[in-house]
Amino acid sequence: MTMKSLSLLAILSLLALTLPLAIASDPSPLQDFCVGVNTPADGVFVNGKFCKDPKLVSADDFFLAGLQNARAVANAVGSNVTAVNVNNLPGLNTLGISLVRIDYGVNGQNPPHTHPRATEGLIHFQANVGRSPAVAFAALSSQNPGVVTIANTVFGSNPAIDPNVLARAFQLDPKLIMDLQAKF
Amino acid sequence: MTMKSLSLLAILSLLALTLPLAIASDPSPLQDFCVGVNTPADGVFVNGKFCKDPKLVSADDFFLAGLQNARAVANAVGSNVTAVNVNNLPGLNTLGISLVRIDYGVNGQNPPHTHPRATEGLIHFQANVGRSPAVAFAALSSQNPGVVTIANTVFGSNPAIDPNVLARAFQLDPKLIMDLQAKF
Amino acid sequence: MTMKSLSLLAILSLLALTLPLAIASDPSPLQDFCVGVNTPADGVFVNGKFCKDPKLVSADDFFLAGLQNARAVANAVGSNVTAVNVNNLPGLNTLGISLVRIDYGVNGQNPPHTHPRATEGLIHFQANVGRSPAVAFAALSSQNPGVVTIANTVFGSNPAIDPNVLARAFQLDPKLIMDLQAKF
Amino acid sequence: MTMKSLSLLAILSLLALTLPLAIASDPSPLQDFCVGVNTPADGVFVNGKFCKDPKLVSADDFFLAGLQNARAVANAVGSNVTAVNVNNLPGLNTLGISLVRIDYGVNGQNPPHTHPRATEGLIHFQANVGRSPAVAFAALSSQNPGVVTIANTVFGSNPAIDPNVLARAFQLDPKLIMDLQAKF
Amino acid sequence: MTMKSLSLLAILSLLALTLPLAIASDPSPLQDFCVGVNTPADGVFVNGKFCKDPKLVSADDFFLAGLQNARAVANAVGSNVTAVNVNNLPGLNTLGISLVRIDYGVNGQNPPHTHPRATEGLIHFQANVGRSPAVAFAALSSQNPGVVTIANTVFGSNPAIDPNVLARAFQLDPKLIMDLQAKF
Amino acid sequence: MTMKSLSLLAILSLLALTLPLAIASDPSPLQDFCVGVNTPADGVFVNGKFCKDPKLVSADDFFLAGLQNARAVANAVGSNVTAVNVNNLPGLNTLGISLVRIDYGVNGQNPPHTHPRATEGLIHFQANVGRSPAVAFAALSSQNPGVVTIANTVFGSNPAIDPNVLARAFQLDPKLIMDLQAKF
Repeated sequence: MTMKSLSLLAILSLLALTLPLAIASDPSPLQDFCVGVNTPADGVFVNGKFCKDPKLVSADDFFLAGLQNARAVANAVGSNVTAVNVNNLPGLNTLGISLVRIDYGVNGQNPPHTHPRATEGLIHFQANVGRSPAVAFAALSSQNPGVVTIANTVFGSNPAIDPNVLARAFQLDPKLIMDLQAKF
Repeated sequence: MTMKSLSLLAILSLLALTLPLAIASDPSPLQDFCVGVNTPADGVFVNGKFCKDPKLVSADDFFLAGLQNARAVANAVGSNVTAVNVNNLPGLNTLGISLVRIDYGVNGQNPPHTHPRATEGLIHFQANVGRSPAVAFAALSSQNPGVVTIANTVFGSNPAIDPNVLARAFQLDPKLIMDLQAKF
Repeated sequence: MTMKSLSLLAILSLLALTLPLAIASDPSPLQDFCVGVNTPADGVFVNGKFCKDPKLVSADDFFLAGLQNARAVANAVGSNVTAVNVNNLPGLNTLGISLVRIDYGVNGQNPPHTHPRATEGLIHFQANVGRSPAVAFAALSSQNPGVVTIANTVFGSNPAIDPNVLARAFQLDPKLIMDLQAKF
Repeated sequence: MTMKSLSLLAILSLLALTLPLAIASDPSPLQDFCVGVNTPADGVFVNGKFCKDPKLVSADDFFLAGLQNARAVANAVGSNVTAVNVNNLPGLNTLGISLVRIDYGVNGQNPPHTHPRATEGLIHFQANVGRSPAVAFAALSSQNPGVVTIANTVFGSNPAIDPNVLARAFQLDPKLIMDLQAKF
Repeated sequence: MTMKSLSLLAILSLLALTLPLAIASDPSPLQDFCVGVNTPADGVFVNGKFCKDPKLVSADDFFLAGLQNARAVANAVGSNVTAVNVNNLPGLNTLGISLVRIDYGVNGQNPPHTHPRATEGLIHFQANVGRSPAVAFAALSSQNPGVVTIANTVFGSNPAIDPNVLARAFQLDPKLIMDLQAKF
Repeated sequence: MTMKSLSLLAILSLLALTLPLAIASDPSPLQDFCVGVNTPADGVFVNGKFCKDPKLVSADDFFLAGLQNARAVANAVGSNVTAVNVNNLPGLNTLGISLVRIDYGVNGQNPPHTHPRATEGLIHFQANVGRSPAVAFAALSSQNPGVVTIANTVFGSNPAIDPNVLARAFQLDPKLIMDLQAKF
């Protein structure tokens, strides 16, 4: 096993090593971790996730393989975001943290966006200004921060926003707005 | 005094009536209210506001006149937002709430925006679809919610964002981006 | 449609306009809004509300009609509070904010009370000191702030508090306490 | 040293024993404890307390003697509340907890009150229904919970509330209200 | 009834006295208290507790008898911790507070530990340095603070930690680590 | 510039790119970021950091170079933790997140520890079980999570804990405890 692939396993298994200690020392493990499960079949929803039965929790609930692999960036913006959040690493539930791997091609960008459920909620973007591809690992202060990409949201919403409204907001011709809405 | 003008005074003086009761009953009034003051002259800053000396607090710190007056809407978007937040009503400091009056002309809009420091942080807008002017009073879950208007922020930032970056993000011609940047 | 009625529609439909954008841009809409539903038939309770299935959420969940209508104030205290909270506007669930319309007759008052689940928790009251009826719109920093009216709670609790206890607390004759308990 | 007096020392010195460990193990002790100090001479106020220079903190900042002594209860309500909060045990600052000793005479009561800065904010009281004096130790979920005693606050505020307002609120004769205001 | 036993009843029944007032004054008692119930039979888990049907709540949910009795301290560490938390006093659910009685023999100790779910999370211990047994009552800022006793957790986890790992961590011989693991 | 070094620059400069947009769009940038500064010369302390004058904030406040470099692991535990927190990246102040790079030699370990100011506060450790060195990047849910290494804290505190106390806690001979205290 090379150093690189081991390192990525290590990132994701930090919490798994804590499990035996937690179960041994505390009679209420459900309060120490709450592995997220999908909404039960009876259609009861909560804002967040229900917890997996703590007796059935295993180290696999805290592990995600493959973060070491580069992703394709041959798309409109020249980048690819791989999110590790509560939806694919259920052990993150209630822990308030998540991780993304971002691959950038030359001149690639992660276009202007906000995270509606993380502390850093201003509009921001990144662009690769180097002469070679790049990769970043970034942490976010939410188990499920979400992303609202500005261009997609404004011009690609479904149902579409009235083009006259967007024309006045962006000081553009309504016909150009309709062209943009067709693209997104 | 007409009913209408009294009502608006009433909105803003609710907290003022609470003051004598608070001061009479609790030996730590600073913990019950913390009227915001500007950063002191010695240049010490905190994320929020320092508190006014509680012995100097008066009902005026909880009062703002004039919210009953209509505002001009003859501008590019046909609306006018009057914010009542901790900056002009210092008694709101630490209370987690604020208010806006929004005047809309016919076809006026409050263009797409987010509030970076309030719970409702998704992109939203309002448009007057009636045949007459309109006015709304809205409450926000922050003493200073802020507003990030999408079009101004993306196309009007200072310093300006590289037009090639925005051209790729919005799938528009770089020349059109530069035109937009000139407008905002 | 007059300006007045439109304005009140506007207050209540701000969030509704956000819905299509939210659904379009985020794969986890349940984390962006959690429309409150009543406790399910199987008797499972949580402190707050369960969420409506996000696929069934509609703009009606964020709308309440009729806030423009004056309410009767011919009662013992000469006022009438119309609350807009998570119980009648289920879209407020998890958003931490609510609104009240308060109608006051001449000499009317909203008697001394506290809000057990909102930041402003000191005892406070309002009284109409003008010569005409008045109306106020007030925002509260909770989706369900509650109200504990002092006189009703102390003298009207069910079961009643021992009159001898209240007599010592308020330094009143036990017989007078029993008279008060009969009124509330 | 008797068992009883030792026990009370023990209650108050729990945190003191933690200090050497904290200082030894963490390079940022200010984040582990923040012993409250009075507002500095230059009149800068914050909602809470500034911290004592962590280098000057000692075990005395976490100790209060004398909680084992019974207090006099020969007063109007027949009880005596001894509060241990951030004002007399500065080490409690930022820890979110405090303690009270309550002495009750026969038929004594801790009259109806609320705690504006602790979770339990409903109106409550205790009464000694036994045939001998009693003592209770109670914990509160705030370093400075405050107390708003209903009767004192409503009838004893300074400046006094207009007797006509209170007469309508409590459905009592204005003259009786004025009698009550004279007592409190 | 002696003063001592009454005092302990008083500690635990403070909240019970509040119930009639709460139910009388607020139409949403579930938001004022949420008596914890065990996870329902259908295996749905949340981080915390579901609430008892508020219509079935009674004063018994806020009462625990027997805290006045001394506990045996003839064990390896010479102390005995009696915890009063949400698991045996279900009315504490959502209130953020709990209580422990700690009995210490001569030279007894509450060995080094942390509380994973309370504000005071540094490693701490207490030791009886007096010449007689001692007792302490301590409050914690969580309804279920948990306890992680260092020695038990590190040397007594199940499954056991690899002795070579612990030997390097504690700079001890692996054989000594295995002896310790056998004791705990 | 190689891809690897660019990627690490990218991690740390994400926030820097946001700055011009924030300053352009919000009149209260101090509420959007609060770059930490050291306690001012007049000895006023708060639990956290004061903010840098927002007019003097620059991209350098959000940048830390060198995270791409491997660290020496020739020490007692065979690992090396490089922390990126508010103390060396002041722009993290108030953002609730930090990052560590951990280098592990063969058989190296990050010994049992807790983080007193991050959500994950149970005792945990990592050990390199591969046949080559490894590196991990881990995110923590605090701008300054701290670390309490169990062995150092218990056996290396200054002043030292009474060896008899530790001997009883760990069921070891007092002489062995003194040997351990000499090592740490």
